[in-house]
Amino acid sequence: MNSKPGELLSKINSPDDLKKISREDLHKVCDELRQYIIDVVSVHGGHFAASLGVVELTVALHYIYNTPYDQLVWDVGHQAYGHKILTGRRDNFYTNRKYQGLSGFPKRSESVYDTFGVGHSSTSISAALGMAIASKLKGEDRKSVAVIGDGSMTAGIAFEAMNHAGVADADMLIVLNDNGIGIDPNVGALKEYLTDITTSPTYNKVKDDVWNLLGKLPVGKQFTRAMGQKLTDGLKGMVNGHANLFEALKLRYFGPIDGHNISKLVDTLQDLKKIPGPKILHIVTVKGKGYSLAEKDQTKWHAPGLFDKVTGEIQKKTFDLPQPQKYQDVFGRTMIELAESNEKVMGITPAMPSGSSLKYMMAKMPHRAFDVGICEQHAVTLSAGLATQGMKVFCNIYSSFMQRAYDMVVHDVAIQNLPVIFCLDRAGLVGEDGPTHHGCYDIAYMRCIPNMIVSAPMNEKELRNLMYTAQLASTKHPIVIRYPRGEGVIADCQPDNMAEKYPFEVIQIGKGRKIKDGKEIAILSFGHPGNFAAAAIRDVKNDGITPAHYDMRFAKPLDEELLHEVFSQYNKIITIEDGTVVGGFGSAVLEFMSEHGYKADVKIMGIPDRLVEHGTPKQLYDEIGMDANHIADALRSMVGVKVLQ
Amino acid sequence: MNSKPGELLSKINSPDDLKKISREDLHKVCDELRQYIIDVVSVHGGHFAASLGVVELTVALHYIYNTPYDQLVWDVGHQAYGHKILTGRRDNFYTNRKYQGLSGFPKRSESVYDTFGVGHSSTSISAALGMAIASKLKGEDRKSVAVIGDGSMTAGIAFEAMNHAGVADADMLIVLNDNGIGIDPNVGALKEYLTDITTSPTYNKVKDDVWNLLGKLPVGKQFTRAMGQKLTDGLKGMVNGHANLFEALKLRYFGPIDGHNISKLVDTLQDLKKIPGPKILHIVTVKGKGYSLAEKDQTKWHAPGLFDKVTGEIQKKTFDLPQPQKYQDVFGRTMIELAESNEKVMGITPAMPSGSSLKYMMAKMPHRAFDVGICEQHAVTLSAGLATQGMKVFCNIYSSFMQRAYDMVVHDVAIQNLPVIFCLDRAGLVGEDGPTHHGCYDIAYMRCIPNMIVSAPMNEKELRNLMYTAQLASTKHPIVIRYPRGEGVIADCQPDNMAEKYPFEVIQIGKGRKIKDGKEIAILSFGHPGNFAAAAIRDVKNDGITPAHYDMRFAKPLDEELLHEVFSQYNKIITIEDGTVVGGFGSAVLEFMSEHGYKADVKIMGIPDRLVEHGTPKQLYDEIGMDANHIADALRSMVGVKVLQ
Repeated sequence: MNSKPGELLSKINSPDDLKKISREDLHKVCDELRQYIIDVVSVHGGHFAASLGVVELTVALHYIYNTPYDQLVWDVGHQAYGHKILTGRRDNFYTNRKYQGLSGFPKRSESVYDTFGVGHSSTSISAALGMAIASKLKGEDRKSVAVIGDGSMTAGIAFEAMNHAGVADADMLIVLNDNGIGIDPNVGALKEYLTDITTSPTYNKVKDDVWNLLGKLPVGKQFTRAMGQKLTDGLKGMVNGHANLFEALKLRYFGPIDGHNISKLVDTLQDLKKIPGPKILHIVTVKGKGYSLAEKDQTKWHAPGLFDKVTGEIQKKTFDLPQPQKYQDVFGRTMIELAESNEKVMGITPAMPSGSSLKYMMAKMPHRAFDVGICEQHAVTLSAGLATQGMKVFCNIYSSFMQRAYDMVVHDVAIQNLPVIFCLDRAGLVGEDGPTHHGCYDIAYMRCIPNMIVSAPMNEKELRNLMYTAQLASTKHPIVIRYPRGEGVIADCQPDNMAEKYPFEVIQIGKGRKIKDGKEIAILSFGHPGNFAAAAIRDVKNDGITPAHYDMRFAKPLDEELLHEVFSQYNKIITIEDGTVVGGFGSAVLEFMSEHGYKADVKIMGIPDRLVEHGTPKQLYDEIGMDANHIADALRSMVGVKVLQ
Repeated sequence: MNSKPGELLSKINSPDDLKKISREDLHKVCDELRQYIIDVVSVHGGHFAASLGVVELTVALHYIYNTPYDQLVWDVGHQAYGHKILTGRRDNFYTNRKYQGLSGFPKRSESVYDTFGVGHSSTSISAALGMAIASKLKGEDRKSVAVIGDGSMTAGIAFEAMNHAGVADADMLIVLNDNGIGIDPNVGALKEYLTDITTSPTYNKVKDDVWNLLGKLPVGKQFTRAMGQKLTDGLKGMVNGHANLFEALKLRYFGPIDGHNISKLVDTLQDLKKIPGPKILHIVTVKGKGYSLAEKDQTKWHAPGLFDKVTGEIQKKTFDLPQPQKYQDVFGRTMIELAESNEKVMGITPAMPSGSSLKYMMAKMPHRAFDVGICEQHAVTLSAGLATQGMKVFCNIYSSFMQRAYDMVVHDVAIQNLPVIFCLDRAGLVGEDGPTHHGCYDIAYMRCIPNMIVSAPMNEKELRNLMYTAQLASTKHPIVIRYPRGEGVIADCQPDNMAEKYPFEVIQIGKGRKIKDGKEIAILSFGHPGNFAAAAIRDVKNDGITPAHYDMRFAKPLDEELLHEVFSQYNKIITIEDGTVVGGFGSAVLEFMSEHGYKADVKIMGIPDRLVEHGTPKQLYDEIGMDANHIADALRSMVGVKVLQ
């Protein structure tokens, strides 16, 4: 199953092994590391272009710093494949992102080299600063390094951390990996500022005249520390003409330097290691470096799936029959329909135009749909500001990222009862990205907020209708519409026929629907797992069990009329949701029962109160016991039908 | 009850009236407005020094801008008293922060001039940008202005908003009100940067030579727009020598100018109104301006309570008997005890050294306890970074502000199971600050996170013991300790005897305590409201009702052993908590019952699922029906004792 590493790489089982290699041979290590990433990812999948972009940086950092004693924090972490391969995980790397295999992100429980678990962006400076402050307090000479991209730098916490780092008497280095792109191209003033620096004539002149020359020096022997000092002084001088943002924040700024010149990186890092206090090194890299197709279409090659590494052809699944659209594409295309008929409709995404499919509307109506960068907090409060002017804003944020804007949801939207529409994408278990990205908590953390409507569609038609309902003038509260990553369930709901075949219908807020009557036991489902329930119901027919099924649609407000019907007819109930069983939809049903004195047996099925690791959604829903088979078992168990094992 | 406004102020019932006043007389309006704030706040209480600092700015903004058509957003809003007085609320201003009176913050439902509800910091730029973008889309010539302090500017969302504003083609002005202080003095690199600007020789030279001269001109007649242009050009030139942070973010930067020179402010704003696009005006003000005691001790005079405006003597309540300490002071003093015996103990506060009482430890052990500014996100991830190095960090954040760091709690602390200690101050209803500050949601939003321990002390002794337990090496999970604002209940737990009289005892994680046995009905309380329950139990004794009482201590993990005891003995249960009834402690009890098949009657008492406005905590707990009287009524009702009305 594994790929064969190159000659040098095959001998590197730890950074200690790397340090034995001569400086002159480091570029070979880089070539082999890059090739190994291409070899493995093309066959086993995963994030791709980001790790290619930091091959030289990864090698240089582990060459110069004394990891794991020195603390290296990778921001986001999807670029840390090279780091994993160099730190003892080369031969397991083919299990990356697979069920029970390596995590796709640095993870403390996986390796001592993974000093801080990541997945969400922009945490690295805070974490590394904490490490640096602790080391100083303990009197240790431990270095801390945070590697952060220019996209991640736009999130507020990065700024908060720099505001502290600049005045903290702690020894840390921030490496700003400037490649101009996150998953989608980076946006905003900071990006333009960085572009100004790296495209300035001064920079380019020096780059051409001096750097190329330096690059040709036999670095390591003749290239002395004094020369390095001159270099860093020179680089620093180079940008003094610019109003330097980082110097304003009291960080000593160095750069920009070419992040693919391994010699230069090694020398610069060695110099910087000796400079105390907080400092930032600005390196310029190309995402996808070394794989030309990835360099050319970086968004596509962020995580391309499996591909032929020679031809660059990306494998596509083929099917005999039409497959359902992704919920994401239903969202993206429905946005345009809604926006065309309602001029108040707008769309906001924090750095996920492709992932959310808002890109369709952004292309067609750039003034009404835009990307604000990795800035969830701003995205929500901006939406609130727009809503004060009567706009109907669809603010599309992944469920787990919405955690970052929680106060803005409470304070700026819900307390003011502004009718912002939160489309929470990637709700439920997301699969290979694992616990940092699972959308487990939103039902609980949204349901407890006054004024908030919390809904989830069971299929594409319901998603369209909830979106339609949300933007009506009659919807006067903030509303959450949560849906999972991936395909829906209606094969004939296709881009070209969707508008005609599934015309918009109003859904009354807080009204569920009865899917089927039954006997003895009822299933109350919320959102997409209603389909798991439907499958389970088909499954237990042979056992003589005929459960009723209600698609509740709303976790808040509950359809109390429907619930009175349910509890007057059934005293065995299963609730099912793709969210935590603590404080979620099931608990809402219990609260209703308590208030109204109902005393049924209720089994709450959902995501258990523990971390769920990575794997395919199918593997994970099986593992946690909430797929159709487990629901069927629960039905049998509750009605007392023995199951033959 | 009301104070008498000055001659000019008495005629100003709206900004239109203000606009009728000549420029020459504006300084009189400022004097009268300042005096009126002093008159009313000294007698009726409220925030004080912040509003004094922006008197001139407030007058100038309403004089120049066409409010409410132009949109004025006050950040935080405790400085908006002058704004309220000038916009039709002068005669009601004495009801400020009182039950059913004016809100202490701008509030959309209170006035059309309050364009955006605030309370938490740093939202104004995002909100005003949303307004500006909407206006542009709608083709309106509406101006948007955000007024934000230098303290608020440190929070990440402000940076996120500037990152967008700098490239958004929208017409907005950010007024940076630089006074170097929030509630406590501002900290961090940004503050130092602003100080560099305002203390630079260039700035001071121009200030002395030119500005004083300009200040003496009879502004409004001879002082033409051309002169104003020269002025703004000059000001801009003045700081170009500095590396300008805001220009780096593509905001046109103007200033710094003296925020107490009304003529200069009026002229500058008039000029800026004509300049399209995103821009920032940096003004320098003195918090507490015009009341010399407040200027000298700004933290004390942030919200001093009632005082004699002539002598400056602040009223103190006097009592015959010793009163309980505030929970805050118990926290602050216990921190020192713990830190003295455990070198791993550290304390972090995001800008609330005084409010949280971490200031005691900060004074004594400045390297182990510090303020990171209004940066809750950074505070949490920094704590996580420290925890990776074995430190036991008490990260003290107000319950409602913790909402801002929710993702960091999930992603950086809980998923990695780092034993960070979150002391959630101001949990429950905080009183006069109202709905933006009530700590209603934390039990629900913390309880749903895996690995998290959620606890609440019923009194000072319990707080000490929970804090002690939390920092033990044996506590290997993140833990929340939530407690309310204000006094505890143990009169003899005083600073000088606390350590001796209430020596630390270990509390087993997840173990509650039985306070008393009873008959027929049991109360399960969580945290401080256990005292309401105890009072209710005393009250119903005369009715022949003897409820059992359990102080559960932990909402997570629940004390299942104790709950089995409860549900095997009682089938009438009241749960009580000072958090929302949606998904909180009561729901946790329901989940336990559901899982174990218990079928008791349960009444969940807590904060209802609606916004609770401002007032004293006593008024509010009465209003929402969870004080001792209401608990007593609930006890009578559940056991069927008729209550004579």
